[in-house]
Amino acid sequence: MIDAKEYLKRMSAELDAPIRSYIGDEEPDNLMEASRQYPYAGGKRMRPAMAVACCRAVGGDASKAVPLAVAIEYIHNFTLIHDDLMDGDEKRRGMDTIHIGYGMPTAILAGDALFAKAFQIICDLDIPAEGMRDVLRYVSQAVWDLARGQQMDVNNEGQIVTEDVYIETIKLKTSVLFAAAAAGGAIIGGADEATVRAINEYALELGLGFQMFDDYLGVAGDSSKTGKSVGNDIRKGKCTCMITHAMRTIEDEAVLEEFKGILGNMDATDEQCLRARQILEESGSIQYALDLAKQKVDNAIAKIASLPESEDKEFMIALARFAIDRDV
Amino acid sequence: MIDAKEYLKRMSAELDAPIRSYIGDEEPDNLMEASRQYPYAGGKRMRPAMAVACCRAVGGDASKAVPLAVAIEYIHNFTLIHDDLMDGDEKRRGMDTIHIGYGMPTAILAGDALFAKAFQIICDLDIPAEGMRDVLRYVSQAVWDLARGQQMDVNNEGQIVTEDVYIETIKLKTSVLFAAAAAGGAIIGGADEATVRAINEYALELGLGFQMFDDYLGVAGDSSKTGKSVGNDIRKGKCTCMITHAMRTIEDEAVLEEFKGILGNMDATDEQCLRARQILEESGSIQYALDLAKQKVDNAIAKIASLPESEDKEFMIALARFAIDRDV
Repeated sequence: MIDAKEYLKRMSAELDAPIRSYIGDEEPDNLMEASRQYPYAGGKRMRPAMAVACCRAVGGDASKAVPLAVAIEYIHNFTLIHDDLMDGDEKRRGMDTIHIGYGMPTAILAGDALFAKAFQIICDLDIPAEGMRDVLRYVSQAVWDLARGQQMDVNNEGQIVTEDVYIETIKLKTSVLFAAAAAGGAIIGGADEATVRAINEYALELGLGFQMFDDYLGVAGDSSKTGKSVGNDIRKGKCTCMITHAMRTIEDEAVLEEFKGILGNMDATDEQCLRARQILEESGSIQYALDLAKQKVDNAIAKIASLPESEDKEFMIALARFAIDRDV
Repeated sequence: MIDAKEYLKRMSAELDAPIRSYIGDEEPDNLMEASRQYPYAGGKRMRPAMAVACCRAVGGDASKAVPLAVAIEYIHNFTLIHDDLMDGDEKRRGMDTIHIGYGMPTAILAGDALFAKAFQIICDLDIPAEGMRDVLRYVSQAVWDLARGQQMDVNNEGQIVTEDVYIETIKLKTSVLFAAAAAGGAIIGGADEATVRAINEYALELGLGFQMFDDYLGVAGDSSKTGKSVGNDIRKGKCTCMITHAMRTIEDEAVLEEFKGILGNMDATDEQCLRARQILEESGSIQYALDLAKQKVDNAIAKIASLPESEDKEFMIALARFAIDRDV
């Protein structure tokens, strides 16, 4: 079985030079620097790796999917820059976020610039224009959906939403970009429509599992590894499927009241946050979230059952499993 | 001779329904409302009118250029939403700006959403994919340049820059989107490469004249018509070709010192601003800016001399003259 982490590391090393090649020394310097900071700083590179792997898994020439991989990574980073500004986050990957380092206007513009650059790159894909148009359709739809998902996330803050709303939000906010990377890679690789659709659905399910696990890590992860302080998501009152599960299953009124008193309370102490986590543990909500994430990943893998066996298909499966089996 | 204002009014009425047709009733409501506000509220519609006119001027079917016209208008409005947020402006077209009405996160996301929608629309242009790719190339380059131009504008604030830097800034910030609208319209109309290039250059020059005249209106316009308070640009220290001219031609040291004392002084009184305007008048700087704008417009018109005569070519010429002959 392929080790997804190893494969990602190798792919990440291969993608590093292309990711660094598209933002040249144009004026003004500060905008170029700000635009480069996040994409150049690394990360798991799951989305670009997926674009390349899906191209190869359908028998395509990986080198033709590399520009799409870069474009997807730029789009991902454009959303990170704007999200960090909206959320008022001050650090990412150990460095100042863009609005802290360069000011709010430059953070807005660096995001916009990465967004524009991604479409310039897609425009120049080395495939027939018809295929480029199909890739563009997936990617532009994904960015539209990303904005919707992020707005739903903003709207949900401090609210108890239903599990359906939670799933719709993370689908738009996270899955659609994975899905555009995967479908785009398959299109570049020359896959037929049914295969593109299957790969798109695989990535949609994978993205759901990935985000559910991310939300799990936010509450139950090892903060020395995730870099997120314990209880951050609890204090923010972030409504995930753990929370919705707890709300509908905790029967003891006193416990429920205690839990509600901590959730969304920005002044909650670390001790209170640990107590909230214990309540989630005891109500089975943490296990529930893990099970749901695992179910999404199983769905994802089932979607690509008919793809011919190959190292890249194995990676696609390994990547799905990795989405819910990581420390960070 | 065609009356550009009348033609624009007619075109604007025709474009109103298409502009209102692309943002449906998806979730979440607040993002949809925020995204619609600026494009639905009107404006001069110069950029979309240009896309349609250029398509027709090369013998194309105008209806095929309408989606591009909408996309260009959405991009223009995306930049307005983000610019208003960066500049802290509270009113536009008599209404609250988006960050005032909906908050900062929604303003960022509404801009991003309009940007994404524009590319979705371009993707679906009813022309062969090769042509769509050419249109996309112009538009995605323009958005990249817009971000650069806006950042230069931010960087220039309170600085005295050279006339070259001023012209480069307004080219990126304003002209490139006019030029993408014009070139895109010509491509959709089936123009050959040389014609597309000529039309692109026409719009680049027109855009320079337009922005120079806008900067002129900011200082010397009738504030009851422009809606901009007298002296706003003076207080902000906005460096235009008027200012660069004044700096290099005013010989009287005392006058120069007086002028510098007012420029960029947020606490300057209306009286002081009027005095600054008088100095610009006496140094010939206002006339210089008008002459330069006129020269750009003459250049623009010269670029399309070889186009066959038609009502739409006449409109293109009238539009260029209108760029420097308006109250608002």
